[in-house]
Amino acid sequence: MRVHVVGTGLIGTSLGLALTRHGDDVTLEDAVPTHAALARDLGAGRLPAAEESLEPDLVVVAAPPDVTAGCVVAALARWPHAAVTDVASVKGSVLAAVRSAGAPLARYCGSHPMAGRERAGAVSGRHDLFDGRAWVVTPTAETLPEVTALVTDVARAAGAAVRELPPEEHDRAVAAVSHVPQLAASLVAARLQDLDDGAVALAGQGLRDVTRIAASDPHLWTQILAGNAVAVRAVLRALVDDLSAVGEALESLEGGGDAPGARGTIARAIAAGNAGQARIPGKHGGASTAYATVRVLVPDEPGQLGRLFADIGAIGTNIEEFHLDHGLGQQFGLAEVDVSPAAVAGLAEALAERGWRLHG
Amino acid sequence: MRVHVVGTGLIGTSLGLALTRHGDDVTLEDAVPTHAALARDLGAGRLPAAEESLEPDLVVVAAPPDVTAGCVVAALARWPHAAVTDVASVKGSVLAAVRSAGAPLARYCGSHPMAGRERAGAVSGRHDLFDGRAWVVTPTAETLPEVTALVTDVARAAGAAVRELPPEEHDRAVAAVSHVPQLAASLVAARLQDLDDGAVALAGQGLRDVTRIAASDPHLWTQILAGNAVAVRAVLRALVDDLSAVGEALESLEGGGDAPGARGTIARAIAAGNAGQARIPGKHGGASTAYATVRVLVPDEPGQLGRLFADIGAIGTNIEEFHLDHGLGQQFGLAEVDVSPAAVAGLAEALAERGWRLHG
Repeated sequence: MRVHVVGTGLIGTSLGLALTRHGDDVTLEDAVPTHAALARDLGAGRLPAAEESLEPDLVVVAAPPDVTAGCVVAALARWPHAAVTDVASVKGSVLAAVRSAGAPLARYCGSHPMAGRERAGAVSGRHDLFDGRAWVVTPTAETLPEVTALVTDVARAAGAAVRELPPEEHDRAVAAVSHVPQLAASLVAARLQDLDDGAVALAGQGLRDVTRIAASDPHLWTQILAGNAVAVRAVLRALVDDLSAVGEALESLEGGGDAPGARGTIARAIAAGNAGQARIPGKHGGASTAYATVRVLVPDEPGQLGRLFADIGAIGTNIEEFHLDHGLGQQFGLAEVDVSPAAVAGLAEALAERGWRLHG
Repeated sequence: MRVHVVGTGLIGTSLGLALTRHGDDVTLEDAVPTHAALARDLGAGRLPAAEESLEPDLVVVAAPPDVTAGCVVAALARWPHAAVTDVASVKGSVLAAVRSAGAPLARYCGSHPMAGRERAGAVSGRHDLFDGRAWVVTPTAETLPEVTALVTDVARAAGAAVRELPPEEHDRAVAAVSHVPQLAASLVAARLQDLDDGAVALAGQGLRDVTRIAASDPHLWTQILAGNAVAVRAVLRALVDDLSAVGEALESLEGGGDAPGARGTIARAIAAGNAGQARIPGKHGGASTAYATVRVLVPDEPGQLGRLFADIGAIGTNIEEFHLDHGLGQQFGLAEVDVSPAAVAGLAEALAERGWRLHG
């Protein structure tokens, strides 16, 4: 397979690394030639020779969202026999721009690998960035089946699990599962700017979880949100309406007034969150599985967490999840070890025998 | 120390267990006598004898938020020499109700242990629930210093790290670090109810983190939010304004219009989230520390995570954090092991030698 990658940032470089390991002939191109050369030096593929006439089977446009459509149109014109895909996080606006440019849509199939890192650029590229991640392909009625199949094959070769969705369904889905959660996390975190240190010090694990993705890149996210404006705004409007309804219910309760309807509004909001959260798939995209948790106090001294790991390994229980939580102001953490309900008692007993303090 | 606990749910029972282990004389009481008897059977303290005239040094009201103020007023009247505290998640509304009942405020010092579990009731009680958690004490100008000192001593005896804040500052702080994040998480999760399975399947770790606390109890949270209505509404109003401003910016960008001011609004929202998130303290309540991360692919087969734990334990590197992330549709997880930057290379090399696939 001959794959030409346009744009050698994090995604393009990672794809080049993955496909090169897979045995494909990967050529690299970037608007900044030294970036393409860097990706080559990292092992992501080769630069075309000056006199070479490229004949790629597939062109992958991995440019920033704002310039993706232009690159797709250019690629469709430059290689009249190649399939073309892109990897932008939004699909409808890219498709609309490609269509309005009069480009041939039969050879174009948009796609979106649901993978990323907190760091950008070729040097952050990894051959296994797509391993086990979803990669959505978004063919239209005009897309040739063999073009969709080619994009699917390449995504699978990179290690991803392919899902097919129409572009507009993709955009509505990511608005709800990614774009609006990003905005909510960012703006909940933004409220912390006004607090003094004593107030911020009350932050617990819940706030840390809610705001972890608030560390994301403003430049990239502006392009993503602007590119999915219609779908994001629909979800955002519903979120604002729900939050406002709770705000009005709280207003009617101020001063201790008895307003039973108001309490019902608040309770329904929290209950709706229960119902929505329960729909999120667990590992492997399947239904959430209920594990049981053994909680272990880990003294914050060098080697203690390593000793816990060694003991759990020696005990031999199959661990499903492991999470370390930190207390405030004291010298230990709380390790949460999820195992099958049947294994809880045995693990707890074996850890206690080895001198660990169990929590609850 | 003689401590009388009024209300033997999760918090009251856990406090009884902790103080009993500490050597205090703990007596128990609950509006439902069988609940108090259950807490006694679990080891949380004793039931007063029928003829006994209790003379507690401290009364701890651990009742649901809605009935806390009434219990505090009753305790101040019933034991004219005792200090009285409560453990409700909101402080201003409880204080206002106690004050308006004409109760003597010199012997009352509100407090709030920042600890909880996803399960309620005496049977979920744990002697170490407060270990390393913050416990806020909220004396007023009328509170006697020895009363504040007594509440502080008991919180420390239960294992907590005490912080002193005025009641209204406490309420403003928890509105921003706990109550509004809870509402935002619940209502972001609520949006998932409308999605079909293919859309929900695109959920990634970011969404899981943002919505984890959306599984919280609607009944309890209605009481908490209603009890802190003024402070929650102020933070909520600012959040809704920020979200609405982004919504308006997106509206002006719909149809691909070029509106540079609109993009600035979006970028500033994400950047404000960066700044707010950076303020959240890391472990031990100190500033966030930058660790370096080694990422390891863990095949989803019995014993693999245990083998990783055993290997890390044998290698002996001091582990700062450990988190397990799950890919979608493939048979392994991604373990993120945080260590000091100086230790990264050694750990990565030792793991690779033991046959682990490192990720990036």
